[in-house]
Amino acid sequence: MMLCLRVFALLTLLIAIPAFGDEGMWTYHDFPEALVKQRYGIDITPAWLDRARLATVRLSGCTASFVSPEGLILTNHHCAASCLDENSTGEKNLVKSGFLARTRERELRCGTQVADVLIAMENVTDKVEAATRNLDDKAANDVRKKTLTQLEQSCEQRSAKARTGPLKCESVNLYAGGQYWLYEYHRYDDLRLVFAPEEDIAAFGGDPDNFQFPRWCLDMSILRAYDSHGKPAATPAYLQWRPEGPHVSELVFVSGHPGSTDRLLTVSQLELLRDVSIPQFLLRASELRGRYIQYGKTSAEASRIVQNPLLYLENSLKVERKLLDALHDDRLLQRKREEEQALRAKLASEPQLAASTGDPWSTIAKAEQIERELSVAYTFLEAGAGFNSKLFGYARTLLRGAAERQKPNTERLREFRDTALPRIEQQLKAPVPVHPELEKLTLSFGFERMREWLGPDHDIVRRLLAKDSPDTLAARVIEGSSLADPQVRMRLWNGGAQAVDASRDPMIELVRLVDPQARAVRKRYEDEVEAPVRAASEQIARARFRAYGTSVPPDATFTLRLNFGTVQGWTENGRQIEPFTTLGRLFERATGQEPFKVPDSWLEVKEQLDMSTKFNLSTNNDIVGGNSGSPLIDAGGKLVGLMFDGNIHSIAGAFWFDPDKNRAVAVHPAIMLEGLRKVYKANELLAELGIR
Amino acid sequence: MMLCLRVFALLTLLIAIPAFGDEGMWTYHDFPEALVKQRYGIDITPAWLDRARLATVRLSGCTASFVSPEGLILTNHHCAASCLDENSTGEKNLVKSGFLARTRERELRCGTQVADVLIAMENVTDKVEAATRNLDDKAANDVRKKTLTQLEQSCEQRSAKARTGPLKCESVNLYAGGQYWLYEYHRYDDLRLVFAPEEDIAAFGGDPDNFQFPRWCLDMSILRAYDSHGKPAATPAYLQWRPEGPHVSELVFVSGHPGSTDRLLTVSQLELLRDVSIPQFLLRASELRGRYIQYGKTSAEASRIVQNPLLYLENSLKVERKLLDALHDDRLLQRKREEEQALRAKLASEPQLAASTGDPWSTIAKAEQIERELSVAYTFLEAGAGFNSKLFGYARTLLRGAAERQKPNTERLREFRDTALPRIEQQLKAPVPVHPELEKLTLSFGFERMREWLGPDHDIVRRLLAKDSPDTLAARVIEGSSLADPQVRMRLWNGGAQAVDASRDPMIELVRLVDPQARAVRKRYEDEVEAPVRAASEQIARARFRAYGTSVPPDATFTLRLNFGTVQGWTENGRQIEPFTTLGRLFERATGQEPFKVPDSWLEVKEQLDMSTKFNLSTNNDIVGGNSGSPLIDAGGKLVGLMFDGNIHSIAGAFWFDPDKNRAVAVHPAIMLEGLRKVYKANELLAELGIR
Repeated sequence: MMLCLRVFALLTLLIAIPAFGDEGMWTYHDFPEALVKQRYGIDITPAWLDRARLATVRLSGCTASFVSPEGLILTNHHCAASCLDENSTGEKNLVKSGFLARTRERELRCGTQVADVLIAMENVTDKVEAATRNLDDKAANDVRKKTLTQLEQSCEQRSAKARTGPLKCESVNLYAGGQYWLYEYHRYDDLRLVFAPEEDIAAFGGDPDNFQFPRWCLDMSILRAYDSHGKPAATPAYLQWRPEGPHVSELVFVSGHPGSTDRLLTVSQLELLRDVSIPQFLLRASELRGRYIQYGKTSAEASRIVQNPLLYLENSLKVERKLLDALHDDRLLQRKREEEQALRAKLASEPQLAASTGDPWSTIAKAEQIERELSVAYTFLEAGAGFNSKLFGYARTLLRGAAERQKPNTERLREFRDTALPRIEQQLKAPVPVHPELEKLTLSFGFERMREWLGPDHDIVRRLLAKDSPDTLAARVIEGSSLADPQVRMRLWNGGAQAVDASRDPMIELVRLVDPQARAVRKRYEDEVEAPVRAASEQIARARFRAYGTSVPPDATFTLRLNFGTVQGWTENGRQIEPFTTLGRLFERATGQEPFKVPDSWLEVKEQLDMSTKFNLSTNNDIVGGNSGSPLIDAGGKLVGLMFDGNIHSIAGAFWFDPDKNRAVAVHPAIMLEGLRKVYKANELLAELGIR
Repeated sequence: MMLCLRVFALLTLLIAIPAFGDEGMWTYHDFPEALVKQRYGIDITPAWLDRARLATVRLSGCTASFVSPEGLILTNHHCAASCLDENSTGEKNLVKSGFLARTRERELRCGTQVADVLIAMENVTDKVEAATRNLDDKAANDVRKKTLTQLEQSCEQRSAKARTGPLKCESVNLYAGGQYWLYEYHRYDDLRLVFAPEEDIAAFGGDPDNFQFPRWCLDMSILRAYDSHGKPAATPAYLQWRPEGPHVSELVFVSGHPGSTDRLLTVSQLELLRDVSIPQFLLRASELRGRYIQYGKTSAEASRIVQNPLLYLENSLKVERKLLDALHDDRLLQRKREEEQALRAKLASEPQLAASTGDPWSTIAKAEQIERELSVAYTFLEAGAGFNSKLFGYARTLLRGAAERQKPNTERLREFRDTALPRIEQQLKAPVPVHPELEKLTLSFGFERMREWLGPDHDIVRRLLAKDSPDTLAARVIEGSSLADPQVRMRLWNGGAQAVDASRDPMIELVRLVDPQARAVRKRYEDEVEAPVRAASEQIARARFRAYGTSVPPDATFTLRLNFGTVQGWTENGRQIEPFTTLGRLFERATGQEPFKVPDSWLEVKEQLDMSTKFNLSTNNDIVGGNSGSPLIDAGGKLVGLMFDGNIHSIAGAFWFDPDKNRAVAVHPAIMLEGLRKVYKANELLAELGIR
């Protein structure tokens, strides 16, 4: 799975390097059509690009695509897992059992999901630069945020007059501040579930097979976008299927939203990840995995409740573990050191450039010493590792939201700017289940680790645990809170500061107790780490532009990108890995026990299935977490696959692209259609997809 | 806690460096009396040394000391935890409640514990060198082991004629093969529990406070050694107490068994620990911690059962976490690189020496590439990470023991040499509880992680989990096995190969299935990693001896050492940490909830207690895991403390001694006596200790 999930990395400022081979997550506004033409002899026209862009959909942490003119959206099963989970109960576990709405009336609302389609892009770099010129680092950092907030707000106001339906303007920072853009999206906030297979076939092989290839996963689901009148959305730009899929070596494109890459961090930033951020994340995540697994064994209901969080957690664990391995590969840091040296040498050879650039690498290294000091307090108090609970999240949103909304738009914490409020409201009012036993588990775990890492004599720890154990405190605040009720949350949200101040909900009180110190450490981080690092990163980016030009793609930022590659396998320890798997081997690998269990629905019709049906395929497209659910598109603009994963080498793609080994993994159209036709007998759906 | 617990590190070959300041874990046969005289003006006489040595006791993973002429042994509570645990039931939890035998008849047998006292030491370096001269690495590795087995055997036969009672001869490798010694011990295999306080006071602060100072732990227990006639052992060399303890800056000695240090690993060996061994251990241990904690919440009985394993695990976790931090401290690796360069430069300046030495550093680095490849298979198949279960351990001992005992003594796996068999038999026949639910937890965990790391398509994984989940397989072999019964184990042990071959016990069958591949990876490790590394380490040690002489202490090897230091605190972030704590602050820090709960027995007599009683103290003695329970001795040979921990900086002592920050932590005699007198009213015991 390539969910857009990453360890909390304090630094997310990214800078650009030259690209080689087919790698590169290109923006639609700077896609290298000429390069594709030169290498593959194929013309990618503006019309092709527009259609691919308008057919591509951004979900929470995932990508998807329109596959019918009436709003059908194809994505991964694991991208719809939250929706399946939210619609499940003890009696009816949709994650496990799958789901098929045979009529539109039976489609199920996904309460917390939205779908964004990118409809316009504007370069606003000049405006941001003008606003921050000649300011010191800290002032520039503040003014930059205010400027972006203003730009987003006026974009939405302007757009609202011109169009109907919800829309969304978001600023985008490319090349670590080398470019700023305003992206305008059409937002669909009424999404409904149409189809999902059983988890046992969607994620066959489970965590052991995750990020492996060869592979046999039907990791698909189908949603539908509805318009603001409650009608299926009209989506004329959609992808038609090519049922036979692509052939070996065929040119293919992935359109989607890669979450983040760190290909241009400085060496000291990479070392911080290696020595501090990732090891600390892995310690916490491994223990939480153990707690989840053991909890899941206590009852069938516990097993159901914990399944989805465990899925996400194990995915993150595998990703971070392989990222750490990559950082322990001496070749990686050696190459990064050489690249850094080369750029510095180039700078040194141009005295004027050198003088205007200074030594941003040392600035970053110095800021990171401060980050190392702040890291534990930031992680536990502000980033939430100490308060690992959905209810705490609601409570903090309510408390901070009330305080922030009293301020002018540009003076607030960025996450409470006006343009962000509708999404917050949607999430507060969505009737998603809160499981008290799971909440207690995660919150007690957070308290216990906070005490371990901050120490039993830390002021906050003393105040929370003076007379309590982590378990007794967690039980009290979870059992005493009424924030699981959406109506209570909306009353407090709408009631603003007065209502929140009057609240004696124990979870609100917990947030209130922690908030001054949480805000203080965040402020220190923003002023002493983020501000100098951002200024220094811009200097490096500018120097790099001068040295190497601008014809390189920026690092991933969970905004829309298009990349090209070909269908191919690779060589692993001297053994050739073929790029296609077929259905027959699925049955051979089945053990009858999860996660290697083929669902009954498939066993029952086994005799009618074509065992030579292609199942999954691998390509050398350069993708990363966030590309889950992306369409694989051929040169004719047809859908030839559904990305859901990469091989194990793809994880190191966060830092560098290895053309020999990095492969993306897709569900083949043939197995999706074989399943819809023979197993699920979804004839209405096949008709709407235009499949005979 | 400084249990002698370390991550399974494949490499345990150690080499020597020069020592500075008061650091150094000196052997009794090379203790630097002159240095002590010069620095402190104190004469340490041979009689002083003999008495300290004969009063010092080695336990499993711990140290202890005789404190009465009739066999009373003082050690830590955590060193007696296994004995307390083995004597506990659902109704009577001795770990929690503590224990006091008011008469000798009520003392409780510790079934798996032995106590060794070092009575003679012989240098056998010449014999080992003569046996291995001119052999290639692999042959030398084999012959070396055979020679040591023979030397041990003839030592025991010789000694048996001269003395009565059990004894034990063990070879000791100092300076990574620079010296070999035969140590002869008097072994007591009948130990009984006399006194232990409640865990809540013994380990006040629990894991959060572990390796912290200031501290308030009454981490003590008292055992008694019995002779082979079932009488209290006569132990004329015992330590008398000095109730008021030492004063600040006083010269003090620690006599004990530091487990292992890695101060002289090569840089490439340290990098292997940093990049592979420790991170992999931490991942597994963190998850297991989560599973234990969550399991412990399912019932009071589960909580009791899991308490002791969790205590050990959390201690290891903290140690390994701080070891990893130390390895991420650039100053450490930089200093190691410089030391290595200095030695190589010195070698290069002496052509003859250089020629005879070759390049052992490259040899080790090359062997480690192989170790990196073997690491996962070795860890899971041979080192037991895949088969994490007491019953599996019994089964493997029985199966391998039967096979190995058919071979001549010198041809066996070393752990089955004749001199090792009595200890194996003691452990097989001890009626210690086996908890099936805990066994299933750990075994299922092992299977699941083995599948993750070896991959679902690995031959062993396929054979074990072709039709099973980790849970169903673990349940079947645990529930079907009768090896929890000591009589069954002894029947199979005594029945030898015939009995074991005939056994259909599912745990024996599991061992049988895995054993060929487990042995194969071990053989590869011994031949391709251990053999060249050992030969190369000897070369480095010899070169180092020539360059720097031999007046340096060897690395720790869980054999008897003596070191000196003074009572002192240290400066932490500009703040002075005082070397003594007092009783009053214990009550102030108490929360009423574990692990910060003061037991009722102390609360009930609070008014009668002297709040200024000294509780714990810190010194700059150079100690490490395995020194737990060591006596702190003054220049007059009196007991002035009981070592139980180090501060957080002491953990990095595995790699280097930091004189500014590394501190050892002891229980003060005053608090032990205050507790025995006023809380436990152990008057008989106080009388035997010679305390009025």
